[in-house]
Amino acid sequence: MKPAILIQTDFSGTWSAVAEMKGVMKIVDPELEIFDLTHDIRKFDVWEASLSLDAAEPYWPKGTVIVSVVDPGVGTARRACAAKLNDGTIVVTPDNGSLTHLLHSVGIAEVREIDESVNRYPANETVSVFHGRDIFGYCAARLAAGIIPFEEVGPAYPVSEITECEEYYLRPVLAAGCAQGHLLSGTRHFGSITLNISNREFAVCGFVPGDLLQITIARNGEPVFDQPVRYANTFGDVAEGEPLLYAGSSGWLCLDVNRGSFSEQYGIDTGKEWTIMIKGGLNI
Amino acid sequence: MKPAILIQTDFSGTWSAVAEMKGVMKIVDPELEIFDLTHDIRKFDVWEASLSLDAAEPYWPKGTVIVSVVDPGVGTARRACAAKLNDGTIVVTPDNGSLTHLLHSVGIAEVREIDESVNRYPANETVSVFHGRDIFGYCAARLAAGIIPFEEVGPAYPVSEITECEEYYLRPVLAAGCAQGHLLSGTRHFGSITLNISNREFAVCGFVPGDLLQITIARNGEPVFDQPVRYANTFGDVAEGEPLLYAGSSGWLCLDVNRGSFSEQYGIDTGKEWTIMIKGGLNI
Amino acid sequence: MKPAILIQTDFSGTWSAVAEMKGVMKIVDPELEIFDLTHDIRKFDVWEASLSLDAAEPYWPKGTVIVSVVDPGVGTARRACAAKLNDGTIVVTPDNGSLTHLLHSVGIAEVREIDESVNRYPANETVSVFHGRDIFGYCAARLAAGIIPFEEVGPAYPVSEITECEEYYLRPVLAAGCAQGHLLSGTRHFGSITLNISNREFAVCGFVPGDLLQITIARNGEPVFDQPVRYANTFGDVAEGEPLLYAGSSGWLCLDVNRGSFSEQYGIDTGKEWTIMIKGGLNI
Repeated sequence: MKPAILIQTDFSGTWSAVAEMKGVMKIVDPELEIFDLTHDIRKFDVWEASLSLDAAEPYWPKGTVIVSVVDPGVGTARRACAAKLNDGTIVVTPDNGSLTHLLHSVGIAEVREIDESVNRYPANETVSVFHGRDIFGYCAARLAAGIIPFEEVGPAYPVSEITECEEYYLRPVLAAGCAQGHLLSGTRHFGSITLNISNREFAVCGFVPGDLLQITIARNGEPVFDQPVRYANTFGDVAEGEPLLYAGSSGWLCLDVNRGSFSEQYGIDTGKEWTIMIKGGLNI
Repeated sequence: MKPAILIQTDFSGTWSAVAEMKGVMKIVDPELEIFDLTHDIRKFDVWEASLSLDAAEPYWPKGTVIVSVVDPGVGTARRACAAKLNDGTIVVTPDNGSLTHLLHSVGIAEVREIDESVNRYPANETVSVFHGRDIFGYCAARLAAGIIPFEEVGPAYPVSEITECEEYYLRPVLAAGCAQGHLLSGTRHFGSITLNISNREFAVCGFVPGDLLQITIARNGEPVFDQPVRYANTFGDVAEGEPLLYAGSSGWLCLDVNRGSFSEQYGIDTGKEWTIMIKGGLNI
Repeated sequence: MKPAILIQTDFSGTWSAVAEMKGVMKIVDPELEIFDLTHDIRKFDVWEASLSLDAAEPYWPKGTVIVSVVDPGVGTARRACAAKLNDGTIVVTPDNGSLTHLLHSVGIAEVREIDESVNRYPANETVSVFHGRDIFGYCAARLAAGIIPFEEVGPAYPVSEITECEEYYLRPVLAAGCAQGHLLSGTRHFGSITLNISNREFAVCGFVPGDLLQITIARNGEPVFDQPVRYANTFGDVAEGEPLLYAGSSGWLCLDVNRGSFSEQYGIDTGKEWTIMIKGGLNI
């Protein structure tokens, strides 16, 4: 059976763009199965694109062909590439930081620049190219259909040249009873905030679910939130409307409110300017 | 051919959650076909989840495996279950009221609590479980793939123990020329309001399309809307911008505005505090 | 292999309507493959529906069965039809202007009115019909499944009787160094504005990418925007936050802002009252 294609964009599903991508894939091979990761990556937000790829990839069959088109530099010098991950899954994307997290989690075995002289949809008109449809989607379809092997994507280049988001190198500081980090992403729909501290790393601090922790969140050093928060296993462990810190299912620590929105309730957003300090010692 | 899987959640499609559910299903069996019911159930709204399941179920092939994950009590004592309906369709859901309408419409032949020691996706990490993906979605995929028969979901429990939404027991009062009911749901996108009076029940009142009816809507007893409204067959039977009462396609009476939004135009929302009175006798 | 079905509506994906359409299609034939064009056509906007069909159609395999349900006149005298395009693709839609662009681009070989006595889903209840599900979707499924040939849709009628949107006849005026047109649509998600001047027609003016053009936009004759704009190949050719005019991938000239929203930044909307004047001669 041919591998499925999984598409992520910042196009939204509100107009024809995603459907045009899928149609070209079905022209390449009507047997292809195509799924949506999400089309609501924040516009032009390569960091969020990278996090989202890293969240979904482990839950798809190895060998899936993932297409990610969050491409603020479309038409500029950034490379169009296909990366083969260490587990056999392929990601077709602009090489603009979208591969940052996968590079460090699953790892990338090989990366190739898409040769547009071969792997570009031969549209009838000489209008400006819709790269998501004509290059990324088309190349992904040819890979998934088995029309080209990975080697025919185009010339290989060193994995060390893959573009990374600089936010990745804002590392948390962790010690027994204390953690410092950044708020770099969140789930806007539910208003949860994701820390740049993995569930695994957090073990160093020695906290256990049930602990009450003092959490201070600052923007550009200015405190915005400073109160005790329960480190909980699940939402129901705190009262409705109460905040909690928990091990998120995507592998990262999260802040949320039981049946509410942490982001809205406390006026907290994400980005490099948002820092967090977590301290223990509040238990009675 | 294997039955299709139909998924409903309150996750929205704006992040990776739904795609992670689908990916795990494809890991279970790459041949599975997966469709979306909607992912925009109002957050934590079990009543809306129940209505939506009841609206869509009759229009899918018997034997479809439906997954519903609107789960405000995730991680608490509510049961995770799979219910076999009287027509053979299976619904995998938290037993938290989401089955209310189907219990009374199609009827439930058998319900089983999901045995998590067997029907839980063996993720690599020991992070907190994403129940939609690791329990509900995984169990549904094993059922649809034929890996387990319904009996191996887990232990059966009495259908009489299924949790119901209390709103269901707010019954309308119907008589010739008069109806009283509640406004318990609506379609936010179009701004239509659904009454808790079925098209069938409404026949008792003896109204016929074309009748002009006096409609009074109150919130906590306080009138918000009080005017004549046409009982019509379709939108085009009233002028643009005019309200109408009609037999909705999901089986319930609805209020709407031709090419407009009843909800916005008249400032009317839904919930137990919203009541409606319909009276005839206005025809000339 | 059976042709795919591609669905477009203004229903949004936030409730069960689209899933009900797909379920009935799977009841007709469980082998059918169903894709979404978009479900976020502006409510009741037949002009946008027509443009969207025209944008996506060329990128789907010939013979695809497209269903479009943007139907402000549901239940009135407008015809329900299936149109066979010159390339073999079939569009099932209310004949209310939704076919305007395809009529003039791909061209329509034959159009038939849906015979509801045959091609209507036999629902259990005698509630009001959900045309998208019970007529358009059901008829499309029977065509895609090969249950009926195109001739059995219903009686043919002259292609010349197909309803067209009057906006189509607002033609641009083009000459060397100068163009006048209307702003008749846009992509709300990205805030780009589409002119009613095709990339091909614009060649008459003799401009080349890189040219700086004076653009004046007026609403009901009142200037709203009047400044030089770069005619560019791609977004990256202008600085972040700067406007550009470019050949859009759907075949029409577009206005946009690099990494921004033209519509929001300049307070510009679309419709018959919005006109544009483009003049050259600014190059140094």
